[in-house]
Amino acid sequence: MTSEQKMIRADHDLLRVAIVPDSFKGSARASEVAQALAQGVSKAAKSRNQQIEITALPFADGGEGTLEALIDAWGTEAITVETTDALGRPVTSRLGLSKDQKIAVVEAAEAAGLPQVSDVPRKPLDASTAGLGPLVLRALDLGVQQIILCLGGSATTDGGTGLLSALGATFLDEHGEELPPGGGALEKLAKIDVSNLDPRAAKVQWQIACDVTNPLLGDQGAAAVFGPQKGALAQQVQVLDRGLATLAQVLEADTGRTLKEQPGMGAAGGLAICLASYFQVELTPGWELVAQVLDAHRILGAADLVLTGEGRLDSQSLNGKVVCGVLQAAGEATEVIVVAGSVALSDQELDQAGILAAYSIASEPASLEQLSDQAPELIERTAFSVMRTYLRR
Amino acid sequence: MTSEQKMIRADHDLLRVAIVPDSFKGSARASEVAQALAQGVSKAAKSRNQQIEITALPFADGGEGTLEALIDAWGTEAITVETTDALGRPVTSRLGLSKDQKIAVVEAAEAAGLPQVSDVPRKPLDASTAGLGPLVLRALDLGVQQIILCLGGSATTDGGTGLLSALGATFLDEHGEELPPGGGALEKLAKIDVSNLDPRAAKVQWQIACDVTNPLLGDQGAAAVFGPQKGALAQQVQVLDRGLATLAQVLEADTGRTLKEQPGMGAAGGLAICLASYFQVELTPGWELVAQVLDAHRILGAADLVLTGEGRLDSQSLNGKVVCGVLQAAGEATEVIVVAGSVALSDQELDQAGILAAYSIASEPASLEQLSDQAPELIERTAFSVMRTYLRR
Repeated sequence: MTSEQKMIRADHDLLRVAIVPDSFKGSARASEVAQALAQGVSKAAKSRNQQIEITALPFADGGEGTLEALIDAWGTEAITVETTDALGRPVTSRLGLSKDQKIAVVEAAEAAGLPQVSDVPRKPLDASTAGLGPLVLRALDLGVQQIILCLGGSATTDGGTGLLSALGATFLDEHGEELPPGGGALEKLAKIDVSNLDPRAAKVQWQIACDVTNPLLGDQGAAAVFGPQKGALAQQVQVLDRGLATLAQVLEADTGRTLKEQPGMGAAGGLAICLASYFQVELTPGWELVAQVLDAHRILGAADLVLTGEGRLDSQSLNGKVVCGVLQAAGEATEVIVVAGSVALSDQELDQAGILAAYSIASEPASLEQLSDQAPELIERTAFSVMRTYLRR
Repeated sequence: MTSEQKMIRADHDLLRVAIVPDSFKGSARASEVAQALAQGVSKAAKSRNQQIEITALPFADGGEGTLEALIDAWGTEAITVETTDALGRPVTSRLGLSKDQKIAVVEAAEAAGLPQVSDVPRKPLDASTAGLGPLVLRALDLGVQQIILCLGGSATTDGGTGLLSALGATFLDEHGEELPPGGGALEKLAKIDVSNLDPRAAKVQWQIACDVTNPLLGDQGAAAVFGPQKGALAQQVQVLDRGLATLAQVLEADTGRTLKEQPGMGAAGGLAICLASYFQVELTPGWELVAQVLDAHRILGAADLVLTGEGRLDSQSLNGKVVCGVLQAAGEATEVIVVAGSVALSDQELDQAGILAAYSIASEPASLEQLSDQAPELIERTAFSVMRTYLRR
C-alpha cells in the first residue's frame, strides 16, 4: 500500500472486518466461533471509538461441520430425517436447506458415516450408502434445484450403489438376482436396472464437495487408500477394488461415460461414480464449494481485515482446509489473521502462506479439555486484544 | 491522536519500539525475555519492510530479579562476594555495579533471603541481616556514590541490626554485653555504640526499593504481617514486635529521628529503620526506583509502542509491579502491549489499566513446565504475530 492509500484509510472512518472461521472441532461449531470473534472485535472497536462493519460467516471445508456452517450462515434449521446408518440400523440424520429452499446440503457422515458405526466391529464389505437415500429424496420432495453432497467421513466402499438403489436403481447379478448392500457383493454385478430411477435426481444440480484427487481403482484408489481406515484387511481391499472395477465396467457399458480415472472418484468409497454416470455432477474442493455457496469471494474481497480460525493451525491447514480457502478467497490485497486452539506454524510458514498473524486462544497453561470448555470466552478475549493491536492509534 | 498526526506517522518511516519486560520468574530472566521479544519484533518488521528502532531494556520491580535486570541493562557482570546467609552459614552472593561504578545494587534476598535458608527449620528469632554487610562494604570499597538496596524476600525481622553491626555498630544490653544476632534478642537492647560505624556508609546515597507501606510496629507491622511467613509463631511475633519497639525507642533516643510510623519501615523485618536512623536514605517503590536508574521515562516516552511482559499478568501486576511501572512511565500517549505466560485480566480490566492488548505465549494446550522450557521461542513467536498485527498495512 502506498502512503497515499494509507492516508485515505486513515481518513476513512469505516473498517470492514470479515469473520470466517471453521469450527473448533469438538469445542465449538463455526457459528459459535464466529460469534465469539465478532464479540471480541466489536468490543475492541467500541473501546477505541472505531467504526466497523462486521460480516460474520461460519465457514467449512466440505468435511465434518459443513452442514452446520452452511445452515448457520443461511440462518436456517436442520431438517431431521429418519434413515439408516452404513450398517442399516435406524438413525436420525440431518438435511440442510437454504433459506430460499433452492439448495440442500447432505453430509455423507450423517447417514453413511464411520463414527456412527464405531460401536460395533467394522464391516467394510457390507457398509452401504443407502441411508443417504432418504436425505436426498427429502431434498427432492422439497423441490430444491441443487444438492451439495459432502463426501468426508464415510464408512463405505460401495461405489455409491446404496444411494443409487435408494433412488430407484437395482443392482443385479448374472442370474438377475438383486445384490445385497455393500461393496463386497459388487464383484458379482452384471446389470443395473435404472428404469425406476427417480427422474428428479437427473434434473437436480449435483455439487459434490471432494477434497481428494484419488481415482476409483488401483493402488491410489478408494479401496487401497481409504479401505484400511474403514476396517478392510488386505484381502478385503482386493475384493472391494475388484467390486469397484466391475461396477465401473458395467456403468461404462451402460452409459458410455468413462469416469474411473477421473480425480476424486476414489473419494468416500467411490460414492460419486454412480451419481456421475447417470446425472450431471460437479466435483469441487470443499472449501471452494462452500466459498461459492456463501459468496465468500465477494465478502472477503471487500474486507479490510479477515479473521479466520480453526481448532489447529498446521501445515494441513494450508492444504484444502478452511484457512487455505479463506486465504485464496481473500486474495493478496486483504490481510488475514488466524485465531486457533493450537498454532503449529512457524513465523516463516505464516509469512510464506500470506497469513498476517496467528494466535492461540490459550491464555495460560491449560489442558485441551480446559481450552475446549472455555473456547468461546477465550476466542472472544483473543479477538479483543488482536483487534486492539490492529487498530492501534 | 488526530488525523493530522496519523498522516504524519504514515509518512514517517521509523517506528520506535521500547521493549521493557520483567523476568518470567523461574523461566527466563528479564534480559532473555527482552531479547526474545526484540527478535520477534525485528523479524516482523523486516518481513513488512518497516524500519524500526528497538530499545530493549530488561526491567524489574525492586523484588527478585532486580539485580539481574539492572546489571543486564548496564551490561555489567555481577561481582561475587563471600558472605553469610540469614542463619550465619557461608554463602556466595552477588553485588551489582553500574558501568561507571557509581551505583551498586544489593538484594536482601542475596544474603538474608528466605529461599537460602529453606533447607532447615526456620529460625525467625535468630535470622540476621549481617550477611548484607560484606556486600555493602564491598560496594563502599569500590567507591560507589549510591547503593540501591532491594528489600524483597528477606528471612529476617532484626530491624537491620545485623547489617548495621557489620558496618561497625555494636548493640548492647543493660550490662554492656553485646546482643546475639536476630530480632529475638532486641527486647534486651539498651544502647547502641556507633563510634566505630564506617563513615563511608553515612556519605553514600542510600536508595531503598520498598513496595509495602507497612509501619514498623503493631498489627500492620513487620512482625505481625510478615513474621508468620518467615516462620514466627504467635508468641514469637510478639517477641519480635517488642524487640523492634525497643530498637525504635533506643534509636529515637540516640538520633532524635522518629521513624517507626513512616510507611515502609515495616518492610523486610524493619531493615530500613537502622539505616534511616543514622544515614540519609530514600524509600522508593521498586519499579519507580528501577525506572529512575534506567531512565525509563525518557525511553518509554519517546517510543511509539512499548512491549512489556511478565510471567503472569493479573490484578497484582497493576499494583506496584513492572507492568504498573511501565504504564506509568510510558504515559497515556504511548501504547503498551503485554506478553505474558498467563493472562488473567479481563478485557475490561485491560482497557481500564490502559493496556492496549495482552497475549499469552502459549501456542497450544501446554503445561507450565512446557511453557517454561520453551519460553524464549514462544515469546519470540508471539512478538512476531503481535508486531505484524500492529504494523498491518
